[in-house]
Amino acid sequence: MSNRFAATYLIETSRRPEDAAAEMAGESSTATFVAIPGERASIAELHGARIERIEEIDPSPGASIAHPAASSVKRCHVTLSWPLENTGTSLPNMLATAAGNIFDVKSVSALRLVDLELPSVLADAYQGPQFGVAGTRRLAGVEDDRPVIGTIVKPSVGLTPAETADLVERLAEGGIDFIKDDELMADPPHCQFDRRVDAVMDVLRRYSDRTGRKVMYAFNITGEIDEMLRRHDKVLEAGGNCVMVSLNWVGLPALAYLRRHAQLPIHGHRNGFGTMSRAPGFGVDFRAWHKFFRIAGADHIHVNGIDNKFYESNESVVRSAQSCVTPVFSDGGPAWNVMPVFSSRQTVTQAADTYDALGSTDLIYACGGGILGHPDGITAGVESIRLAWEAALARVSLEEYANARPSLARALGAFAA
Amino acid sequence: MSNRFAATYLIETSRRPEDAAAEMAGESSTATFVAIPGERASIAELHGARIERIEEIDPSPGASIAHPAASSVKRCHVTLSWPLENTGTSLPNMLATAAGNIFDVKSVSALRLVDLELPSVLADAYQGPQFGVAGTRRLAGVEDDRPVIGTIVKPSVGLTPAETADLVERLAEGGIDFIKDDELMADPPHCQFDRRVDAVMDVLRRYSDRTGRKVMYAFNITGEIDEMLRRHDKVLEAGGNCVMVSLNWVGLPALAYLRRHAQLPIHGHRNGFGTMSRAPGFGVDFRAWHKFFRIAGADHIHVNGIDNKFYESNESVVRSAQSCVTPVFSDGGPAWNVMPVFSSRQTVTQAADTYDALGSTDLIYACGGGILGHPDGITAGVESIRLAWEAALARVSLEEYANARPSLARALGAFAA
Repeated sequence: MSNRFAATYLIETSRRPEDAAAEMAGESSTATFVAIPGERASIAELHGARIERIEEIDPSPGASIAHPAASSVKRCHVTLSWPLENTGTSLPNMLATAAGNIFDVKSVSALRLVDLELPSVLADAYQGPQFGVAGTRRLAGVEDDRPVIGTIVKPSVGLTPAETADLVERLAEGGIDFIKDDELMADPPHCQFDRRVDAVMDVLRRYSDRTGRKVMYAFNITGEIDEMLRRHDKVLEAGGNCVMVSLNWVGLPALAYLRRHAQLPIHGHRNGFGTMSRAPGFGVDFRAWHKFFRIAGADHIHVNGIDNKFYESNESVVRSAQSCVTPVFSDGGPAWNVMPVFSSRQTVTQAADTYDALGSTDLIYACGGGILGHPDGITAGVESIRLAWEAALARVSLEEYANARPSLARALGAFAA
Repeated sequence: MSNRFAATYLIETSRRPEDAAAEMAGESSTATFVAIPGERASIAELHGARIERIEEIDPSPGASIAHPAASSVKRCHVTLSWPLENTGTSLPNMLATAAGNIFDVKSVSALRLVDLELPSVLADAYQGPQFGVAGTRRLAGVEDDRPVIGTIVKPSVGLTPAETADLVERLAEGGIDFIKDDELMADPPHCQFDRRVDAVMDVLRRYSDRTGRKVMYAFNITGEIDEMLRRHDKVLEAGGNCVMVSLNWVGLPALAYLRRHAQLPIHGHRNGFGTMSRAPGFGVDFRAWHKFFRIAGADHIHVNGIDNKFYESNESVVRSAQSCVTPVFSDGGPAWNVMPVFSSRQTVTQAADTYDALGSTDLIYACGGGILGHPDGITAGVESIRLAWEAALARVSLEEYANARPSLARALGAFAA
């Protein structure tokens, strides 16, 4: 498959699955609705989508959209493939193929892109994560076997640069490894980007000079292309060590462009992914969606969190996180693993389940309220999260580990249901 | 509202609508799940989302996703607004607010972004369409009261540059106004972009020299940022007059970047819009979606077509087309209308309905098979579409107008149901 790429869809159709798959194949490659002059048989052979697999699966009523004749609806996985001759190694054009007008075909009542098989020849055209897991650990100063423990500046919007820096100082003193801007905070009038960088980096530089300990701060540089490059350079000059973008609203070409310019890890926020993933019957699964951004150069990608505050199931969150550390290409080449970022109501209570699900500590575990809202303050909050992860690695229950460890005990009191 | 922006959502919830709206407001502005040190009351007042309206509407079972307790579900329009103090005039950051994590809130069982109210101060930050309707008409040489009649090079993929140019020559000789690359055709090995531009422009230059008539050709420059700029320049140098991008896969910042560089109209293809629009209960309506791309600089935007080959209803298509020619800002400023592009199984049969729906000929009417598949060939195909529009403007039925107009009569025979 090294000269082809493939996509697997979940479809529902009241037609014969073969006919629905043929319509999808046509719409994503050579077909139009009438035969036209100049069409050669060889064009269909050389450039047509190939139906690789059709696998009927159990109907699962209620899992996808309403359908007038639900009893006659078949539910299938359909895998199509296309030659790179159609697109070259261009991610936007591969998306126009695998996630373009194919989503409009009439013969399906549900259609969801669940996975992609991408060839490693893309590694010649794109740069992938520059820092990934090892580089992030090095820059964040977390080389032992535990996750990078992080938090988010809150309130999401409204703090001034000085207020942000004050909070950052308390977080650094409290022992945090990683801090990120909220995705709602970029370069607004009340907290201008450059002033925020100056204020925050002044605090973090002084902290690092005094303690020798580094903290990673992901500044949200989301914006227009020139703005993002300039803000990246501002962070770099100020001695910062991470930038963040809202992947969906920046888009693939801008991310690839930033990656070519970047000397810092790129923290990829997935906000807006719900617009194309929440409806069960349509849209795109994380597994497919995140591969493009990984190849284009994100180092970290948000996966939501176990027992999160949002609608997403734990099963789905775990699947997303696992896919971040599964090699990105289907035929070898570089693995280009990225660090999954767990967030959304994370506290001490999800450490063990997260570790069990991932079997690794190569992740960023970001707690907003779970640290900032600790009843004994930030230092106790950070310590409690570290202890919860120690317990997870030691396979000891939180309750047991909390004996004689008051910060963990107090966190359990505050956050355990 | 000139210092705020607003979004209207369709939601379904089994909670009190006020509570669901409050959760949405919190998630898209200042809230986290616990009170945290440093939070001031004034932050919520200055930066919190404001719930502008909650309007309960008729429940419409079957229109959105399945819900376990359908009988208790309320269906509402909810309008939220945010101060520009939160985002500045940055489209990607406004999207992170209006279409970010808000899509993940748990208290709704459906959530769809249906419209946006954007302030005209964005016209200071973005450039909008450079050519729009008037510029497109001028460059395509269609200044009289009829649509720009267009077609798409088919087969979608597989033609060589020489084969493409042959087809273009026949289309130009046939009287076509506008031709576009298929969205599946960008810069693949078998039809390299530069060679295609050279071959096509050689034909169009000779045609124009001989006849004085211009044809607009939208070359699909979709790709990475440097590629797009370089390809734009290649088209410009070769005497071309339009470039095309796949809006969703290029993304907003790349489009705005291209716009600042561009000296040619930008034809915006919407492929992939189905990933975020087809599920009735979630995602984004065209009305909201297209505004961002309009402001960032698209001149033409695809709206599908009446009686299209895809799943979309005529009502939805018409609403999309009308929104393209409704001023983009909610408080005055430039209108920044864009040309709606009708395509997908368009033939002579939809001209009257399209004209009735839009009340204007300011549109591109793109027929693939409807021209290339005319039984008497391309010239008859183009003529038949022009005649169908003459009939539409004259409010004469196609059948009557087809008397003594054989190309139209033959088209009716071939394409009318």
